Amino acid sequence: MEGRRLVNPVLEAIYSRRSVRQYTDKPISPELVTEVIRAGTWAPSGLNNQPWRFAIVSDPEIKQKFEPLTKYSKIIQGAKVLIPVFVDKNAMYHATKDYQAIGACIQNMLLAAHSLGLGAVWLGEILKSADEVRRILGLSDDLELMAVVAMGYPAHRNQRSERKELDEVIVARV
Amino acid sequence: MEGRRLVNPVLEAIYSRRSVRQYTDKPISPELVTEVIRAGTWAPSGLNNQPWRFAIVSDPEIKQKFEPLTKYSKIIQGAKVLIPVFVDKNAMYHATKDYQAIGACIQNMLLAAHSLGLGAVWLGEILKSADEVRRILGLSDDLELMAVVAMGYPAHRNQRSERKELDEVIVARV
Repeated sequence: MEGRRLVNPVLEAIYSRRSVRQYTDKPISPELVTEVIRAGTWAPSGLNNQPWRFAIVSDPEIKQKFEPLTKYSKIIQGAKVLIPVFVDKNAMYHATKDYQAIGACIQNMLLAAHSLGLGAVWLGEILKSADEVRRILGLSDDLELMAVVAMGYPAHRNQRSERKELDEVIVARV
Repeated sequence: MEGRRLVNPVLEAIYSRRSVRQYTDKPISPELVTEVIRAGTWAPSGLNNQPWRFAIVSDPEIKQKFEPLTKYSKIIQGAKVLIPVFVDKNAMYHATKDYQAIGACIQNMLLAAHSLGLGAVWLGEILKSADEVRRILGLSDDLELMAVVAMGYPAHRNQRSERKELDEVIVARV
């Protein structure tokens, strides 16, 4: 029933994007980091409240402080830039919808990074260390950590990933 | 400080996508609806748990039953297809991260629709009628309504949208 896949550059990006966890030594130009964040901000949000906030961590010494905060310290170590993403509690209007908006924002960032030849991965396990992340960056409690996006140039592109069949996730057709 | 925007087809789609609320009479082929959902499923999710579930509502009589469930009944009326998106409570592992994954999934759907020449809008206000949506579709309580994506061919493309300056949303650079 699923038919063949249609193709265009946007669908290509959506289907070929992978979580990239190993990076080359090549640095990322600040212009590209800005573009990834800009792409994030063009996600939709409820009432267009744009609750997302971003930090940019590229200083190696400060980046190193993130390593003990997650079991994925090797990813942090290899990444050239970390972008901790926060939700601003003062901008929120409905927790579920605001968290969804943050997810849409991060997906834009991952697709933008991929389209620019970068590799990125969405780190969620580090949320257990939200307080330490805020402390390292000197940020207030109003900012709730939502994820850290780690980026660099991909060391390779041989990741595979799997998804359920569409029939397993389509629960009604009327 | 923000520099000029970089351009490629993915960034173009991210920046030019708008919430489309008015549609022509042209029907949407089932193949395109399937592709939009497939694109949604290629979002990342924590532990790759893929908690998203979808319904496809194209029957005009059933679609009409959604009209009283939201103040945006005119959008429902004009749309050719509704895709209610749910989170499967049995697949969830961390509410915040699962809601984010749903948001990433919906953003993929919106970008895919845009790339296929369709117009779509993410309806969140209808969550107040989650029980009625489940009842109309005969779905169990295990499925929590996350949003309804309404789609059709755009009646026009003159929507504008605004975003905060990047300096307002970047809270730290180190």
